[in-house]
Amino acid sequence: MDKNVLHKISYGLYILTTTEDNKPFGCIINTVFQVTASPAKIAISLSKDNFTYEKLSKTGVFGVTILAESVDPSVFAAFGYKSGREEDKFASFEISKGTQTGVPLLPKYGLGTMECKVVSQQDAGSHTVFIADVLDATLSDKDADEITYKYYHQVMKGKAPKNAPTYQEESDTDVATDDVVHECLACGWEYSQNKGDGTETAPPGTAFDDLPDDWTCPVCGSPKSAFQKKE
Amino acid sequence: MDKNVLHKISYGLYILTTTEDNKPFGCIINTVFQVTASPAKIAISLSKDNFTYEKLSKTGVFGVTILAESVDPSVFAAFGYKSGREEDKFASFEISKGTQTGVPLLPKYGLGTMECKVVSQQDAGSHTVFIADVLDATLSDKDADEITYKYYHQVMKGKAPKNAPTYQEESDTDVATDDVVHECLACGWEYSQNKGDGTETAPPGTAFDDLPDDWTCPVCGSPKSAFQKKE
Repeated sequence: MDKNVLHKISYGLYILTTTEDNKPFGCIINTVFQVTASPAKIAISLSKDNFTYEKLSKTGVFGVTILAESVDPSVFAAFGYKSGREEDKFASFEISKGTQTGVPLLPKYGLGTMECKVVSQQDAGSHTVFIADVLDATLSDKDADEITYKYYHQVMKGKAPKNAPTYQEESDTDVATDDVVHECLACGWEYSQNKGDGTETAPPGTAFDDLPDDWTCPVCGSPKSAFQKKE
Repeated sequence: MDKNVLHKISYGLYILTTTEDNKPFGCIINTVFQVTASPAKIAISLSKDNFTYEKLSKTGVFGVTILAESVDPSVFAAFGYKSGREEDKFASFEISKGTQTGVPLLPKYGLGTMECKVVSQQDAGSHTVFIADVLDATLSDKDADEITYKYYHQVMKGKAPKNAPTYQEESDTDVATDDVVHECLACGWEYSQNKGDGTETAPPGTAFDDLPDDWTCPVCGSPKSAFQKKE
């Protein structure tokens, strides 16, 4: 079985949100699809390890903010790789409250939002598939292009966090044995000495230690100090 | 509620197949996502009106052929808009048989295929969401770009068939009241007199009747006779 086929399935990227005791919770997901047109229903898949899963299972309501190609990388740094168990991911983001369910929405950081109410769920092992009614939907930027997972990987150079359905074990990827790789602990992006960062600042062959002090992660903007050498 | 938000969800395009009594059945779907990584499971959404639904519900196994940007438009003409109740959609396609389940696969017309076995299903009104184990997966063209629904719409100018979860009522779309529109009955593409076909042969303002006799549908290649004027 060639698991690379699974990486040819197309996805977008979304901030999934919910609320409990007036506190916002959320994470990035790629698995959203429309199930029925009338009435509008969508399906999402969510890892049971996610703190957002714990909250969403209780509340039965969630918000979806659809990300655009122009998304600020800080969104991935905050929602993609940290856990709401340890910190308030929403601290530096302006949020609005959904009028139907009170869930947090981030219209300023995406091109549109939806408010949804779970109508059924289906256990799938490590993940659960939720089907939900779309109660409200708002387009905040109709001209924006929705970001695809592929665009995120190929243009923004992001990689999947561990709880994503599409997570790929390190051993499956192509890493040259003579390469020195540093990983951004904020967003998971990897700096490869062999490849550089794709800019004139760090052409192929530039050692991580030789990068300028003010160099930052090209995906999430974290400083050099957020990187750790991979053994 | 602004339903246009739902059109900002990203999808790929796939030929969904199954078999009964050694006969192949299939249709195009856009709703496939990976649900879990270990073991590999995917979810699909399928309209209960589809003949393929009837067959898949009985057999519990299906194949997925992932379409590429280079897909031959005849694939959409055959699998997207016709019903297997009326004709053999597979007649002019070379198919192979999945080694695990015997389902028909179309590796020559896509970039990769998967064989799947349904493990659970969830009723969602007009559609059903199936979760399935991926039993086998083969990449037939690793360098090909998977086609997105957006690419199909914007570059190939396709539109959604009625049973798609993303089907949009005619009244929701922008059609100028002074336009004369002819629809391709094979693939659903519409020729607009106001817009022409985007080539020098038919610049904006060219009446359908004035198109050359050998003009064909730019999406599926059907002849002029396959078109019907929309009232």
